[in-house]
Amino acid sequence: MISSPFESAEYQSRLAKVRNEMVKRRLDLLIVNDIANQHYLTAYDGWSFYTPQVVVVPLTGEPVWLGRNMDAVGGRLTAWMKPENVVGYPEDHVQTPERHPMDWIGRWIAEKGWGKGRIGIELEAYYYSPKAHARLTMALPNAVFVDADLLVNWVRAVKSPAEIAYLRLGARLAEAAVAKAYEIISPGIRECDAIAAIQTAQYSGLRDHAGDITALPPTILAGENASAPHLMWSNRAFTANETIALELAGACRHYTSGLARTMQLGIKPRHVADVEKAVLEGMDAVLETARPGTVAHDVEAAWRAAINRHGLKKESRIGYSIGVAFPPDWGEHTISLRQGDTTVLQAGHVVHAILGMWMEGWGIEISETILITERGCETLTSFPREIFVKV
Amino acid sequence: MISSPFESAEYQSRLAKVRNEMVKRRLDLLIVNDIANQHYLTAYDGWSFYTPQVVVVPLTGEPVWLGRNMDAVGGRLTAWMKPENVVGYPEDHVQTPERHPMDWIGRWIAEKGWGKGRIGIELEAYYYSPKAHARLTMALPNAVFVDADLLVNWVRAVKSPAEIAYLRLGARLAEAAVAKAYEIISPGIRECDAIAAIQTAQYSGLRDHAGDITALPPTILAGENASAPHLMWSNRAFTANETIALELAGACRHYTSGLARTMQLGIKPRHVADVEKAVLEGMDAVLETARPGTVAHDVEAAWRAAINRHGLKKESRIGYSIGVAFPPDWGEHTISLRQGDTTVLQAGHVVHAILGMWMEGWGIEISETILITERGCETLTSFPREIFVKV
Repeated sequence: MISSPFESAEYQSRLAKVRNEMVKRRLDLLIVNDIANQHYLTAYDGWSFYTPQVVVVPLTGEPVWLGRNMDAVGGRLTAWMKPENVVGYPEDHVQTPERHPMDWIGRWIAEKGWGKGRIGIELEAYYYSPKAHARLTMALPNAVFVDADLLVNWVRAVKSPAEIAYLRLGARLAEAAVAKAYEIISPGIRECDAIAAIQTAQYSGLRDHAGDITALPPTILAGENASAPHLMWSNRAFTANETIALELAGACRHYTSGLARTMQLGIKPRHVADVEKAVLEGMDAVLETARPGTVAHDVEAAWRAAINRHGLKKESRIGYSIGVAFPPDWGEHTISLRQGDTTVLQAGHVVHAILGMWMEGWGIEISETILITERGCETLTSFPREIFVKV
Repeated sequence: MISSPFESAEYQSRLAKVRNEMVKRRLDLLIVNDIANQHYLTAYDGWSFYTPQVVVVPLTGEPVWLGRNMDAVGGRLTAWMKPENVVGYPEDHVQTPERHPMDWIGRWIAEKGWGKGRIGIELEAYYYSPKAHARLTMALPNAVFVDADLLVNWVRAVKSPAEIAYLRLGARLAEAAVAKAYEIISPGIRECDAIAAIQTAQYSGLRDHAGDITALPPTILAGENASAPHLMWSNRAFTANETIALELAGACRHYTSGLARTMQLGIKPRHVADVEKAVLEGMDAVLETARPGTVAHDVEAAWRAAINRHGLKKESRIGYSIGVAFPPDWGEHTISLRQGDTTVLQAGHVVHAILGMWMEGWGIEISETILITERGCETLTSFPREIFVKV
């Protein structure tokens, strides 16, 4: 048995909150397709989600993990449920046009007597396909399917003390990653070599805990890539006088704290310093505004007012709820810091406020992972916010 | 402009093969949701697929990439099409219940005049959700949607010389990764530290090329995890006398060669040596059988006969087509080496034959990435196959 990240009481509490919401929505069963949600409810942890895998939550009793037979062994090693609640479908259902895993899973649900009534299901989870859904609904003709997207995600939005402790460890790894980037990146160093050093800090940066894979890989925006987010590293070497945006994170037991910073090789140009000043003031405005009772869109409005004073604009949102995460995204798809988001912030919310300004041919990013506390907020990462100049 | 992995002629040839298949199936348009397929057709390369993103292939003219506005900048830097064929949807459509990117994309397709006729669409691509499909079909009421899963994947199955060159580079990175694992793994070393060293070899192992992220992260099966594939690393330190299965790969311009090997700390136990012998004979049987004209299931049958002679059985398939890959899977979902797969192998096919035997509390894995040649086959990786014993 692999050590579970949390005590049994934590999982029971999560399950109770999810069931409370199921009852409100008159659901008889919940089918959880999102991998982070599956892990959140069961502790199951394996890179097996490239074949269909679901967690089924009835109103009473344990949840059931259903996945590939080969991975049910790992399910029994990582998930907290009794072995009979970790169920594998036959290997001959894997990636073949002849049989679909959802045929088998649907039959299993029906045989269990759970194929009637209202079934809530996550219809926008990564790795749950239109074909999978068509096959599942075909196998369960007596059920009424109800969209349950984000039901579990909204339960996740408020973090427990134990979760916050992991996020703090993730924050230490994120700090180690940025410090390593500052240390290694210099003219002549290749992007891929910098990424290797950064990932080493992400995985090895804590003595008593492993760093986990981050849901997004490290991104470094420099040179030809500097004007666009989310591009991948290459064989290119850094050159003198580049402005380099680093979008990094650290993850401990999959709890992820983001940390973006910007560094400057050589002398910081005036236009970079000007945008930096605006962004730093914008971050101050975010941190002054974010507290229990504030509406999410007011945090963005405070940022917008600050950068507008500098003649700058930004179209995209500036932050999102963050927590337990699996690839491809560490955002939780619930709270966004943007116009029109009316979520009222409360203690235990954690948002990654990421202030990315992509200009013509260069860009800067500065972020903080922010815990809403009883009285205000706290940045989980503790790292100088200014652009790091390396001459 | 970021350097494209291939010449223009390569993309034109791919497009011609895809259109040939579209015509055969009487498709007027193809919507490509699979990220590896999108990259294969357009060279687009960014970690942006956590928001909806499609590539639309009409019967004439350039394909069109449609994704998040923020990522269209990176699209214009990486994709080979004219800038007007890289199209961004507004940021206020990102992860909000009020607007769905597929509403916008569907309208765009309709306005282009492509909303009529038969539209082929990949219904089992990762990151394409049932909700996305429902919104898209709602926005295109005059189209007939036809399942086009694996249409592009089957075009990908036969590799060009330029693709094989990248797979050879990926194979060098995979060899570097296994060599590094052999070097670093010893009693007292933590799993997470070994993973960091292995990833460094995967990214930095070639002087003239960057190593890319592999579609599956490195997996190390040892200690409590040894009896199950696909589990993730932890803070645990290796101990004396462990049998350790390494499932690794290397990726160059996302072309991925897999390489699994097994190492033994201390003296190799008799039961491990017995299974090793069977697996090595099984690999010999695979390599003797795999050639143009052989049916995929006969390769598996040769393996099965070999291990049956040693009293061993394996339920799951022993290999799959491999090539260009993005997370979460490096398999191409076409050819499988297993019972019932009637694909006739041909020159240019590349399969990852992975012989994993997970026993009670331990396991071994040995794999080869195999290119089918004109006369037989060739392993792209060149690395001693026997269990590496480290005393």
